Amino acid sequence: MEEYNLGITCDMHVHVREGAMCELVVPTIKQGGISLAYIMPNLQPPITTLDRVIKYKETLQAISPDTTFLMSFYLSKDLTPELIHKAAKLNAISGVKCYPAGVTTNSASGVDPNDFSAFYPIFKAMEAEGLVLNIHGEKPSMANKNDTGETEDIHLLNAEEKFLPALKKLHNDFPKLKIILEHCTTEAAINTIIEINKDIKDISEVKVAATLTVHHLYLTIDDWAGNPINFCKPVAKLPNDKRALIKAAISGKPYFFFGSDSAPHPLMNKARHVGVCAGVFTQSLVIPYLAQVFEEFNALDKLKDFVSTFGLRFYNVKETDIKSKKDTIIYRKEIKVPEEITDEKGTIVVPFKAGDTLKWSVKFQST
Amino acid sequence: MEEYNLGITCDMHVHVREGAMCELVVPTIKQGGISLAYIMPNLQPPITTLDRVIKYKETLQAISPDTTFLMSFYLSKDLTPELIHKAAKLNAISGVKCYPAGVTTNSASGVDPNDFSAFYPIFKAMEAEGLVLNIHGEKPSMANKNDTGETEDIHLLNAEEKFLPALKKLHNDFPKLKIILEHCTTEAAINTIIEINKDIKDISEVKVAATLTVHHLYLTIDDWAGNPINFCKPVAKLPNDKRALIKAAISGKPYFFFGSDSAPHPLMNKARHVGVCAGVFTQSLVIPYLAQVFEEFNALDKLKDFVSTFGLRFYNVKETDIKSKKDTIIYRKEIKVPEEITDEKGTIVVPFKAGDTLKWSVKFQST
Repeated sequence: MEEYNLGITCDMHVHVREGAMCELVVPTIKQGGISLAYIMPNLQPPITTLDRVIKYKETLQAISPDTTFLMSFYLSKDLTPELIHKAAKLNAISGVKCYPAGVTTNSASGVDPNDFSAFYPIFKAMEAEGLVLNIHGEKPSMANKNDTGETEDIHLLNAEEKFLPALKKLHNDFPKLKIILEHCTTEAAINTIIEINKDIKDISEVKVAATLTVHHLYLTIDDWAGNPINFCKPVAKLPNDKRALIKAAISGKPYFFFGSDSAPHPLMNKARHVGVCAGVFTQSLVIPYLAQVFEEFNALDKLKDFVSTFGLRFYNVKETDIKSKKDTIIYRKEIKVPEEITDEKGTIVVPFKAGDTLKWSVKFQST
Repeated sequence: MEEYNLGITCDMHVHVREGAMCELVVPTIKQGGISLAYIMPNLQPPITTLDRVIKYKETLQAISPDTTFLMSFYLSKDLTPELIHKAAKLNAISGVKCYPAGVTTNSASGVDPNDFSAFYPIFKAMEAEGLVLNIHGEKPSMANKNDTGETEDIHLLNAEEKFLPALKKLHNDFPKLKIILEHCTTEAAINTIIEINKDIKDISEVKVAATLTVHHLYLTIDDWAGNPINFCKPVAKLPNDKRALIKAAISGKPYFFFGSDSAPHPLMNKARHVGVCAGVFTQSLVIPYLAQVFEEFNALDKLKDFVSTFGLRFYNVKETDIKSKKDTIIYRKEIKVPEEITDEKGTIVVPFKAGDTLKWSVKFQST
């Protein structure tokens, strides 16, 4: 049977929430073929203390003992350099997530993307500890006037591109800080990441990387207009952007790797005429979704790098931190995307491409 | 009290459907401050016969005797030059609506926008009769490859701009045919209409005009992303496009006038996670919505031209065709947009800006 061994698979951008939704979603990490998940801290309130991040990890580990969880803090004024150092020494976190205020789900406690200087002591501590700064790279929308009174439009389509100068400045100011531009959606962002890495000679030198989701390899604006189930932030952009993302994913460049940004929302928060929640739920089938795209572009041989090698290396994941040593195997067997996933309490989450048939299935296998 | 007389007001792009929805919506034309409505023919099946257009008009007239209805055919292979001549002689239609296949609600019977030549005999008859060709000016979305194998992306954001060469060709081939580019949404379209009319010396010379909706004077992509109630086709575009539309509306140029494209959909077809119906319902308050924008841009003195003079002139509406000679007056009195409008059968339609307070009210007054 046609099979590919993907090694220890990583999803470096995962939202699993709390409570009933958490219990529903955490097991789908493994179902989707993922061994290791980097967990985002945008709970309500966000995770900014050692106590909470340790307890959150224990909760997740209890639900799914085989899954390896890397944890994160939410960048805010509650953090101190001392806390960063302490959390790093305890191996309690692998990174800190930066949300510009107001751009996505639970980002109200975020930072002003026009001025990161208040957080420079934090970044300095992170740089020293080798922690990763995960950035949601969008500027908040703004029409007509910028600070100097000139016309400058920022809207959902250019919000990421408008953020790129801030990314470059951060890298210049902290050249050894590991930074990830999360869930890239534009050709402009891909080009910037390539430009920043143009002198890289070895994977060990990569300091600025980007995660790519799987749904952005499928979607453009036409797919979410009128289909709230495909609405996420950053929004899927134009066909040239999608082509650039696919090209990056299959490029074999070590600074592009997988982060699903899978974000579960109850169906009732999707099927609304106003205030639809942003997020696409891909977790339960991430590897089959990815395999399908990689096969379409004759790049199945590049999938292991994208979902395993590059992410493990960038995060410097140690063998001893991995809970299960089983490799993820994809094999050619059709699988139908369920119309919905539910728990016994009646929470309904509709997965990406519900009802479609995918070409690859997934299993774990001891090496 | 502060008042403005807007004359005989026209909404030159109205969808009123059939059956219960028609009974609910037709009275809102007058409620919204409109005397004369140009009625679109995209019923199921579309209107392509004399018999149906006459009966449809009778139905509408029975519901709202004071409203003046201008009627239209749906451009399709069912039409013949003979039918066009006959319908014109009987004053049964004022124009013919052209829908590119597949771009909006009930457009499956539409035409191929890459080749109008099959309809040239129809256009010739329309030109001779002084009928108006109403065009939904969008190309269908298409990624990657065009007919010649080159990469050409057409998506929701550039679909209108990609149509503009076809508009120019039509005007060149039928320089005396009256054409309206309906519900313009882009700066590119506005610039094209201005360019086509650059040598116009008198309003009577205008052959190519554009209608502008009121919701596109308010919305950009950020407003419909996550808010299906604001989702329509063509989709609202970017801030520079919105500024160009407002500038055109208040310009006093006789080739820009009002057509609401108000499109009622039951709430259950808006609050969906997939397959949301495209259309914004503005009918019941079109004049108050418009007055608010015109006031914001210090252009209330231009509102009468936009909603009355220019449209009446382009369509060459005769005094004798107007059912009610009452003028529409706006006066400064706050009015709250209802959360929904309903009929006794339980059909719910949510109006644009539901729950907001508008600054201008509307009444009719004998002259």
